[in-house]
Amino acid sequence: MSSSTGTIFRVTTFGESHCKGVGAVVDGCPPQLELTEADIQPQLDRRRPGQSIVTTDRKEGDAVTIFSGTENGVTLGTPIALFVANRDHRPGDYKNMRFVPRPSHADYTYQMKYGVRASSGGGRSSARETIGRVAAGAIAEKLLRDHHGVEIVAWVSAVGTIDAPEFIGQQLSRDQVDSTDIRCPDADSAEQMLNAVVRAREARDSLGGIVTCECRGVPAGWGEPVFDKLEATLAHAMLSLPATKGFEIGSGFAGARMPGSAHNDPFVLKDHRLGTVSNYSGGIQGGISNGEPIVFRVAFKPPATIGLAQNTADFDGEPTTLEAKGRHDPCVVPRAVPIVEAMAALVLVDAALCQGVRQPYIAS
Amino acid sequence: MSSSTGTIFRVTTFGESHCKGVGAVVDGCPPQLELTEADIQPQLDRRRPGQSIVTTDRKEGDAVTIFSGTENGVTLGTPIALFVANRDHRPGDYKNMRFVPRPSHADYTYQMKYGVRASSGGGRSSARETIGRVAAGAIAEKLLRDHHGVEIVAWVSAVGTIDAPEFIGQQLSRDQVDSTDIRCPDADSAEQMLNAVVRAREARDSLGGIVTCECRGVPAGWGEPVFDKLEATLAHAMLSLPATKGFEIGSGFAGARMPGSAHNDPFVLKDHRLGTVSNYSGGIQGGISNGEPIVFRVAFKPPATIGLAQNTADFDGEPTTLEAKGRHDPCVVPRAVPIVEAMAALVLVDAALCQGVRQPYIAS
Amino acid sequence: MSSSTGTIFRVTTFGESHCKGVGAVVDGCPPQLELTEADIQPQLDRRRPGQSIVTTDRKEGDAVTIFSGTENGVTLGTPIALFVANRDHRPGDYKNMRFVPRPSHADYTYQMKYGVRASSGGGRSSARETIGRVAAGAIAEKLLRDHHGVEIVAWVSAVGTIDAPEFIGQQLSRDQVDSTDIRCPDADSAEQMLNAVVRAREARDSLGGIVTCECRGVPAGWGEPVFDKLEATLAHAMLSLPATKGFEIGSGFAGARMPGSAHNDPFVLKDHRLGTVSNYSGGIQGGISNGEPIVFRVAFKPPATIGLAQNTADFDGEPTTLEAKGRHDPCVVPRAVPIVEAMAALVLVDAALCQGVRQPYIAS
Amino acid sequence: MSSSTGTIFRVTTFGESHCKGVGAVVDGCPPQLELTEADIQPQLDRRRPGQSIVTTDRKEGDAVTIFSGTENGVTLGTPIALFVANRDHRPGDYKNMRFVPRPSHADYTYQMKYGVRASSGGGRSSARETIGRVAAGAIAEKLLRDHHGVEIVAWVSAVGTIDAPEFIGQQLSRDQVDSTDIRCPDADSAEQMLNAVVRAREARDSLGGIVTCECRGVPAGWGEPVFDKLEATLAHAMLSLPATKGFEIGSGFAGARMPGSAHNDPFVLKDHRLGTVSNYSGGIQGGISNGEPIVFRVAFKPPATIGLAQNTADFDGEPTTLEAKGRHDPCVVPRAVPIVEAMAALVLVDAALCQGVRQPYIAS
Repeated sequence: MSSSTGTIFRVTTFGESHCKGVGAVVDGCPPQLELTEADIQPQLDRRRPGQSIVTTDRKEGDAVTIFSGTENGVTLGTPIALFVANRDHRPGDYKNMRFVPRPSHADYTYQMKYGVRASSGGGRSSARETIGRVAAGAIAEKLLRDHHGVEIVAWVSAVGTIDAPEFIGQQLSRDQVDSTDIRCPDADSAEQMLNAVVRAREARDSLGGIVTCECRGVPAGWGEPVFDKLEATLAHAMLSLPATKGFEIGSGFAGARMPGSAHNDPFVLKDHRLGTVSNYSGGIQGGISNGEPIVFRVAFKPPATIGLAQNTADFDGEPTTLEAKGRHDPCVVPRAVPIVEAMAALVLVDAALCQGVRQPYIAS
Repeated sequence: MSSSTGTIFRVTTFGESHCKGVGAVVDGCPPQLELTEADIQPQLDRRRPGQSIVTTDRKEGDAVTIFSGTENGVTLGTPIALFVANRDHRPGDYKNMRFVPRPSHADYTYQMKYGVRASSGGGRSSARETIGRVAAGAIAEKLLRDHHGVEIVAWVSAVGTIDAPEFIGQQLSRDQVDSTDIRCPDADSAEQMLNAVVRAREARDSLGGIVTCECRGVPAGWGEPVFDKLEATLAHAMLSLPATKGFEIGSGFAGARMPGSAHNDPFVLKDHRLGTVSNYSGGIQGGISNGEPIVFRVAFKPPATIGLAQNTADFDGEPTTLEAKGRHDPCVVPRAVPIVEAMAALVLVDAALCQGVRQPYIAS
Repeated sequence: MSSSTGTIFRVTTFGESHCKGVGAVVDGCPPQLELTEADIQPQLDRRRPGQSIVTTDRKEGDAVTIFSGTENGVTLGTPIALFVANRDHRPGDYKNMRFVPRPSHADYTYQMKYGVRASSGGGRSSARETIGRVAAGAIAEKLLRDHHGVEIVAWVSAVGTIDAPEFIGQQLSRDQVDSTDIRCPDADSAEQMLNAVVRAREARDSLGGIVTCECRGVPAGWGEPVFDKLEATLAHAMLSLPATKGFEIGSGFAGARMPGSAHNDPFVLKDHRLGTVSNYSGGIQGGISNGEPIVFRVAFKPPATIGLAQNTADFDGEPTTLEAKGRHDPCVVPRAVPIVEAMAALVLVDAALCQGVRQPYIAS
Repeated sequence: MSSSTGTIFRVTTFGESHCKGVGAVVDGCPPQLELTEADIQPQLDRRRPGQSIVTTDRKEGDAVTIFSGTENGVTLGTPIALFVANRDHRPGDYKNMRFVPRPSHADYTYQMKYGVRASSGGGRSSARETIGRVAAGAIAEKLLRDHHGVEIVAWVSAVGTIDAPEFIGQQLSRDQVDSTDIRCPDADSAEQMLNAVVRAREARDSLGGIVTCECRGVPAGWGEPVFDKLEATLAHAMLSLPATKGFEIGSGFAGARMPGSAHNDPFVLKDHRLGTVSNYSGGIQGGISNGEPIVFRVAFKPPATIGLAQNTADFDGEPTTLEAKGRHDPCVVPRAVPIVEAMAALVLVDAALCQGVRQPYIAS
């Protein structure tokens, strides 16, 4: 149900923002993969709050512990339980939200669904839930990199109304992405984006943005043909992230404007395999990878929790004014970069393992 | 895996374009729902080829038979098997595609995945696969309408570069949508769209477009909070349709450009329940419905199979020119309307049934 | 849910006893397997009613049609839909059961679960539901035999109080099993069993029995270690068959009586692999196959529908006497033999495919 | 896959015998259930090693911590993560088993499946894995008891060749069961059983046994009709426990010996509901509960790890003699009692929640 994902590489996350801790159980990871906390921590550090001026100043070391599933630095094929303690709670910050649901936040819908909700910090709707995803995603990425030669790199391509130039197809590295605090590889755009975020923060407002992700080295044949097309499971994964509003694969909404004669990707021989001249398909045809880079974009809304006064209603429908307290990111996209990468890795590793199933028969 | 969807209301489709027939098995439909073929046929008729000048002229009656799961016009709670025979095959049309994979089509990726593929008609990647979805969706819709008061209406909001005016929030009916062949409720836009499609057809080219969908009457509380957020399962469902390139919920990509102070949907009392003034959230907050209409948009690319000569390569990588034969839609969006509605219904009915699970405990 | 089974090789059955027909959809069957109806029909013929004096005389040809998933006699990797029409209904036979639930039958529990039930023939609880299982199982068996060298043979080891001698480890063939109508390979026991069934039939009573099954050639390493231990999924599969009351793997209940020093299976070198001297484990240790034959036994109760007058109560609780009409087997175990084989095949093929997933990583 | 079970009330366990700890994540537990560690600890204490002379003397407090999913002693509807630290490892005890797989243990099959295994303590095949099950089962039991009035009581009905008298239908309480160390409610049988276990222990041998379980108060209508019959999911759950060899529902294997006229359970009016005079069905008909107590029996083999010298072979097939060290139960059935109860609770709560889904439609 809700807190698990994947068919073979199966991830279950747990934890609210203000309970003892958050984490994940990864079941179905193949045995004999070299794995220690050091393989997981770097992506958690990229996700962590308090990295720079553009993020919340909640202070969390977010150090991960592997509880089970490995011995002597090698996976056993058994469930890998991952845990990160919660430390820096300030429940008091949430006092005025007890009777007033934050607009465009999950306070109201959780209350309607469950009849109860975590008293502070957003509970399960908090971005802290994504810690388990990023930790699990780091394991998935290691499998993809070490065993399949797949590389995943995401970056910020827009903040508010500021767009970066196109970087698709430029073999961008994570170091290049991390060269700016905003995780946009173009220095000029990054500076404008950073200024916009600082201004939004000062105005106690927030900004949205767009993350672009490229998955290189995926062989042809991954993904399923009908309900679980690869673009469908990627869309599912991305729209399952807090604050996302849209997903595009390849040409996306712009593709709907083009005639077929311009949009089709003609085939051509590339390094002893069939490739395509253009990549409007975004690396997927009929739900199955075609060997070209998989490229997609994810829209993130501006964070709902803002310090500005908002006219709204309390749970009883009485008009009121809300000024949110608590420590919140004025713009989530820089921290969303490793989270998008993690979700892409979870989708791809499961597709790789599901496809592994069929190969003995194809070969024979 | 690939050909099933849903947790409680579980649909499995089967059938290639040129085998004996296509259909679906619906498991988990509640008992005692009144149901005959007459409840299912209308949406199949809206999906059927050969309806108008804008669709393929493949002739298929697409009459559905219920094999099992009902007696005396009432569901038994057991699997409902649905079947539609294939009749009008013309495998000869596909002869020149045997050695040449169609650009941006699934020929190449199916071959890479399975080492074999249906010799004609696209096999499982054909739009005929959606017959099973539409038939199952009609059952889901009946449950939603009769037991939950939910109404789902989709329409064509763009064809190529032509956009219709905004109809969200106008309580559009399916009759209004069907008032034009192109299924755009605005007569002027519809005429322009139709002309564009006719021109594309004459040029042996194709056009994409956008379908907007509104789900009215969904109560607050449906959907799951983490991996299976309602927008995530909707995105999954929509991107699982052939030819889709993008999905937006509520404000979508435009929402990424807005500041939080403008994007947030303030609460207000509406008819004894808490509603929102605006609906940038698209009816979902934190993955869970909030009682406002659920609104989303889906981008469809121009169909890949076109009559125009394309420079491409055959399976061996040899350069060649392809002129596709066969009968294909120059623009799929009019026929996509009932398919989008069907997939929305499948997602919502499953969310309704999953939420049903929890209520006894909330009440007690 | 209820009508599907398997993780990778996923089978969904449909159909009541008296609807248009019964069948199954097999999703996840690997591509490029040679398959036609002729591979499936033989096991359906062994399951069919009216084969001999010991079975019901309902007349059904039970000829299977493959609707989809194959072309030119080869699987495409897409869902294989299988259909068998129902022909010889006699709803009138069930008239007196409309108000009186048959003791130890599913009439009462279906009514309580669904608030409605099929008016005749047992609906989904009828043995006709197993047609879809046997058809799907025949495909699974073909994969196991052709690609893994696995052979599955079941036989009747007891009818009522009559036990056959032990045949485990004797490389019994299906021809030997089918050498008697009762499907007990020992001629003397078979004659006694047959006489007992004939006497029960004459007395309008019924008899139970035990089926033993041996799966030879399963390599070490199939099965899962925790909730889905191979013996657990076998037990699940067998207890999902109508009329089953018990399941034993290897030593079974007798094993509970033995000391560990006698029950343990010591290892020994066998043909370049590690084997065991005895096989009290029944071929499975810790949920995972060990390379020895997998051996299990299934207890079937006497059929609940009998012609003898029974003092019972109607749906309103009023005392009444019931003499069941309709055509029913006095003893199901001969026809259960191919059904047990089918379910074993479904469990094993899924275990084989799930294990296939891991091997690329073990190898690297 | 392997480490998860359940459709709605979904449990995932993790942890090896000698890693940092073991536990479970429970997803799908309804909100607003009162729950603290004090609800879970008692069953863990009944399962704990070192309780009496008949169990291993490994010393583990096995205190459980709830990491997430509750606030102020009430469930939030979010995943409940449960953790128990491992403390008393003695890896040295396992030294001589590094090269010699223990007969009838999982050492060999894990090695064949994964190509690697935990170096000591049995890893995931250790009985410590059942801690997560018992903890999750305690939550399931609370729901069943508080919201459905269901009571589950299991007891030891046989140890080796010693059988207790029949207690089914006697409304046995857990206190009565716990009145003897062996958890057999009959004092005379218990004394004989205890003596047998002490003798086995002195002989460095082991004994098997049988656990009987009765689930009272289950209403009619739980369970699924086809692949997931209630007896099938119970059999699955029980055979997923370490050391189990057989499962019987109701009359079990003895039922296969009876004629239908004696085996059928006639209906009779009981307290305004339809009940049955006898209960050979074991409370389930056609896979669905009928309102009578659900009764089943589980066979446990004698523990495989014994101190007696065994002639066997090492991993290379070389003959050798093994005398197992380490601390192991000479007979597991007393500690199996709460584990069987836990697994029954997990099966029943999931059936209750799945049935909850259908009721709104039945009512309308």
